[in-house]
Amino acid sequence: MTDRVTLALDAMGGDHAPHETVRGAVEYARDGGRKVILVGDPAAIERALGELRFEPRDIEVQPASQVIESGEKIGKIRTKRDSSLHVACRLVRDGRAAALVSAGHTGAFMAIGRVILGLIKGVDRPALPAPFPHRGKGYSILIDAGANLDCRPEHFRQFAVMGFHYSRRVFGVENPRVALLGIGVEDSKRNAVQREVASILSETRVNFIGNVEGNDLFADRADVVLCDGFVGNVSLKVAEGLAETFIEELRGEIVKGPLRRLGALPLRPVFRVLRNKLDYREYGGVPLLGLREVAVVAHGRSHSRAIRNALRVAEKAAASQMTDKIARDITMLHETEERLAAASGKGG
Amino acid sequence: MTDRVTLALDAMGGDHAPHETVRGAVEYARDGGRKVILVGDPAAIERALGELRFEPRDIEVQPASQVIESGEKIGKIRTKRDSSLHVACRLVRDGRAAALVSAGHTGAFMAIGRVILGLIKGVDRPALPAPFPHRGKGYSILIDAGANLDCRPEHFRQFAVMGFHYSRRVFGVENPRVALLGIGVEDSKRNAVQREVASILSETRVNFIGNVEGNDLFADRADVVLCDGFVGNVSLKVAEGLAETFIEELRGEIVKGPLRRLGALPLRPVFRVLRNKLDYREYGGVPLLGLREVAVVAHGRSHSRAIRNALRVAEKAAASQMTDKIARDITMLHETEERLAAASGKGG
Repeated sequence: MTDRVTLALDAMGGDHAPHETVRGAVEYARDGGRKVILVGDPAAIERALGELRFEPRDIEVQPASQVIESGEKIGKIRTKRDSSLHVACRLVRDGRAAALVSAGHTGAFMAIGRVILGLIKGVDRPALPAPFPHRGKGYSILIDAGANLDCRPEHFRQFAVMGFHYSRRVFGVENPRVALLGIGVEDSKRNAVQREVASILSETRVNFIGNVEGNDLFADRADVVLCDGFVGNVSLKVAEGLAETFIEELRGEIVKGPLRRLGALPLRPVFRVLRNKLDYREYGGVPLLGLREVAVVAHGRSHSRAIRNALRVAEKAAASQMTDKIARDITMLHETEERLAAASGKGG
Repeated sequence: MTDRVTLALDAMGGDHAPHETVRGAVEYARDGGRKVILVGDPAAIERALGELRFEPRDIEVQPASQVIESGEKIGKIRTKRDSSLHVACRLVRDGRAAALVSAGHTGAFMAIGRVILGLIKGVDRPALPAPFPHRGKGYSILIDAGANLDCRPEHFRQFAVMGFHYSRRVFGVENPRVALLGIGVEDSKRNAVQREVASILSETRVNFIGNVEGNDLFADRADVVLCDGFVGNVSLKVAEGLAETFIEELRGEIVKGPLRRLGALPLRPVFRVLRNKLDYREYGGVPLLGLREVAVVAHGRSHSRAIRNALRVAEKAAASQMTDKIARDITMLHETEERLAAASGKGG
């Protein structure tokens, strides 16, 4: 074993592949101590490497003869067993890479990743997290952002364990606060769910703090926020839509007069900070939680910077053995559930 | 009958009552052709009127001996039959005012309004709308923003009829586009709901256009967007939280250097435009949809400008006979439902 991390990258996935994926990999590997295996069409990858103004290092190319087209149905994608995504997943399964990154179709990644890498024992469904930036520093990780439309209490508990370790290992939060997304009125249905989630989690190492509301995603109230995938996806898209609106309106107002334009000049870095903070594309990538290996999905519109950041996320998750910690605590969660069920069976 | 609109205002409702409510009413009535009945403690109202720097006109005071305290339970509130909210509702019920406005507790307003003013025949549940600003001009009205946590297809259809007329009469949209909030993946449960909503609405005058996503709330894709109250409340709070974050971060970045501060000076009106656009408190108020009379709820933190705007909303809704149009089309909706049910009964 060597200390050098080796990551696999689906070089053909994403709107700007392979040019930007290759560039992102080279930027990432440049710092040294890291190696990236670029998976895809060797000719296209070599061309992209040739276009770089600097020497690629610690880069290897692994051929894959098929490419997943955007808009292809999952059924069709499954049959493309030599796609760059399939091959990249197999590199991780076979131990040749510690983790993989793809900016391709999220649904396909989830389906193929699940088949090739497998689910952690005791995890019913893989989940898709989405980080929401706090005012100031830090993030709330929303789980699930669209993979699971309807969720029962046992799913929220599994999300809680997965989110706890994601926040801890990738974001470095010491003891992440995990909360359920609620609304500030009497809601007997969701209060019952909350009680069911809380009663078991309180017996685990997960730091469950109860309910938070939609606006708390941007406050430093919780590090992990649980909801079903329908609510999560709507929340994510509302935030994306509003961020875009804000930036556009700001730009539209500024160009209305010469004094405004002049005043805006020293504010350019300010706008860039805001844009980056609120632009989820800049974030890089998120691990598909629940898979047995680290598989990081980057935004389809990723440019090299996002790819580089996604590779860093993959490295952190792999180096900290995030999936092993999740597997251990999911086993403990189920033992706790069984113990409490048995105890309540005796008690009742 | 006279052309002059008379509105009732719960002068005691809201965080800044009665000072700001009274001030808002006087600002509204100042334009002439309008009259406001201020309901509440006469001494407190007279004091607030006395503090104004200009002469109030077209203002009448209607005494009410009780005040609803913030945080009071609905059960307790119901027994305060001489509260300013109760009395203002009765002024409308008895035809002394065309509509009412309150910045008090929304849940209380809904409960008391429902009892005193009654529900439109055929409406199962009153609904709370929330306007989301489009980039550029216009609004998407989200229904429901938190009053109904779980909704069936028949509720969405009623929301559709109510939202259609709210958009048309208050926002002046000629033929409002009504859509269901969805997410961009296969969702058999919600697709079934959508089909059930669409099949009936296509036989009515409501212009139903199918699904839109969370980010479309800020785009000019639809004028009315339907969802259950849980999703609606989370969406509203996510948007409020992000807007607040954006403004705070902008301010925090600007004060970081003298050149930035200087540059920001001519941009002040820009920031104000953005702030107002995204600050739902500035909006004024929204009608509680489904009640037999026009009852407009203003934000609890309303200052005089928001109260004045809420009174204008109430005036528009009352003058355009919004509730009568809703009642007519709800009746037609149920006739259509019955006709189609009978036809499918024969067919099957």
